[in-house]
Amino acid sequence: MSERFCIALDAMGGDHAPDMVVAGADIARERCPNVDYLFVGDEERIRPLLARYPALAAVSTVRHTPDAIAGDAKPSVALRAGRTSSMRLAIDAVASGEAACVVSAGNTGALMAMAKFVLKTLPGIDRPAIASFFPTLRGESVMLDLGANLECDADNLVQFAVMGTVFSRTVLGLLEPTVGLLNVGSEEQKGHESIRQAASALRASALAKNFRGFVEGNDIAAGSVDVIVTDGFSGNIALKTAEGTAKLYAEFLKRTFKSSLLAKLGYLLAHGAFQKLRLRTDPRRYNGAMFLGLRGVCVKSHGGTDALGFANAIGVAGDLVVHGFNEKIRDELARLQAALEAAAPSPEATEAAAV
Amino acid sequence: MSERFCIALDAMGGDHAPDMVVAGADIARERCPNVDYLFVGDEERIRPLLARYPALAAVSTVRHTPDAIAGDAKPSVALRAGRTSSMRLAIDAVASGEAACVVSAGNTGALMAMAKFVLKTLPGIDRPAIASFFPTLRGESVMLDLGANLECDADNLVQFAVMGTVFSRTVLGLLEPTVGLLNVGSEEQKGHESIRQAASALRASALAKNFRGFVEGNDIAAGSVDVIVTDGFSGNIALKTAEGTAKLYAEFLKRTFKSSLLAKLGYLLAHGAFQKLRLRTDPRRYNGAMFLGLRGVCVKSHGGTDALGFANAIGVAGDLVVHGFNEKIRDELARLQAALEAAAPSPEATEAAAV
Repeated sequence: MSERFCIALDAMGGDHAPDMVVAGADIARERCPNVDYLFVGDEERIRPLLARYPALAAVSTVRHTPDAIAGDAKPSVALRAGRTSSMRLAIDAVASGEAACVVSAGNTGALMAMAKFVLKTLPGIDRPAIASFFPTLRGESVMLDLGANLECDADNLVQFAVMGTVFSRTVLGLLEPTVGLLNVGSEEQKGHESIRQAASALRASALAKNFRGFVEGNDIAAGSVDVIVTDGFSGNIALKTAEGTAKLYAEFLKRTFKSSLLAKLGYLLAHGAFQKLRLRTDPRRYNGAMFLGLRGVCVKSHGGTDALGFANAIGVAGDLVVHGFNEKIRDELARLQAALEAAAPSPEATEAAAV
Repeated sequence: MSERFCIALDAMGGDHAPDMVVAGADIARERCPNVDYLFVGDEERIRPLLARYPALAAVSTVRHTPDAIAGDAKPSVALRAGRTSSMRLAIDAVASGEAACVVSAGNTGALMAMAKFVLKTLPGIDRPAIASFFPTLRGESVMLDLGANLECDADNLVQFAVMGTVFSRTVLGLLEPTVGLLNVGSEEQKGHESIRQAASALRASALAKNFRGFVEGNDIAAGSVDVIVTDGFSGNIALKTAEGTAKLYAEFLKRTFKSSLLAKLGYLLAHGAFQKLRLRTDPRRYNGAMFLGLRGVCVKSHGGTDALGFANAIGVAGDLVVHGFNEKIRDELARLQAALEAAAPSPEATEAAAV
């Protein structure tokens, strides 16, 4: 898709909204010029911000609503009581075809519940999943689910494997992405029953060629596989543990460079190289979690991010639109329907896995 | 305990056994002189190694067995067929009172199954848990379970909280260790039912004062609490994700220092400071996972470790013996029996948590 399209933004979601939403959109605007923006939220707060960026204002529309979803609102409550919220109206714009995608830095659970309710899932997908990129020793990998579904059965995991594969092909351009199931050991008898069943199903499916079996937590950063499939509970623990550990080592590094005069001099010399490392590992670079499996593109930004991070989330959403991700996932799913059918855990497979 | 005691070593467990077991014991011997060693395994391989360390040989006994547990053996098979294995005979030495503790770098599942079968659990503890130290921004914290119990109910989690608290008091010397339950969000309604039930139980217990509710993956490295309680599946994922991420950043650091001439010069200057950082974050420093909740001290070393790492695992076991950990945990458990009883999820608490 190279024609002009519109991105709907929940202007009131996130710790620093609406300021960082507007400032982020302006950064994104410079990067992809053929996009219009629909800001949904409190007009009185958005207008003065937009006035600071005339070029952005020229391609933007504001849809006023006084309502916003609280960061700690329960998804079920948000769904029931949030019909006129900025988040909901931004999603509605995608459902109506007015916008090609939606980006929000608001409450993750509420966003997922609303997006699922309004946009519905793609055919063949029971539950959407949250996916994100991870830096690895070998480049980048994709992990899903990161928190949408705390408990997953074997069918869900197999569908996540299909979505992750298509995503990796479409967005990362990998022809034959490898897939691993996150587990506590690589031996066949390890882990929960649902994971063992999913493994049997994948081994019997059209994805078998690229399925590498079970992977462990350390395989995420090692880049052992391109797509890591897991339930939302484990995925969220892994995501946040990785973020926390990265922060710890960045802090250790800072303390080390400050620990002696020689180390400080050393830092002055290595400064340029470390600037590059900082850019490469900047968490804002990895901002933008994709909700996969919906009939519409929905990207969740980190709630605490700044304008640059939010711009990256917008960039991810734009990429998915430009690359026709959902069209491709639909095509691939149809093509892989045989895989999904072959992959549905048969009674024999289930029995074998349980031994 | 300041009198002489014996440490039983599974001489055949681990990727580099028996070499690193013997060499590790010699390093440990220099650190704590009043310990005797019982090496269990293939005498023909152990004797020539011991001959290289006369001071160690002087305080060591060798118990010959030709059998060893394979690294990929299923725990149930190891338990049935491994009665004369080096691992089993080393545990037996603790059960008979001949040794004060046992250290093995062998198959974790087999070691846990055998230790539980031979040593039994402490009164009031249904399932033992694997615990280990983690480096944090604020020092060190303890996390359990790291893989012994893939599924845990609320009672198990409450017992882990009690064991972690006692461990933190006894070994880390913290008077009032704070406790958090690992979850995917800090809001009360988040997570699996077992976690929510455990939270209600802990809030109603004698541990309430130091219970900080739910923590997330990033809180592990942040050191938000002193004791992180979780089921063995999530704990294992978190442990290995943290290890993998630390390795990734160490590699990024190495590449950065090699990326330009200035950076290389900078490294030469900062070298000393980085040596200290390396020592501080050396994974071998954190080697030695404690099996808590057993009537005997059992420490699991990382299977791939070297002599220095194995020596640290021996050091952890020795510490637990010297500090009378199991006696203290027994006393504390008796003292906290009221806590455990108050903490047993009542029907009302369960109902409230499920809302």
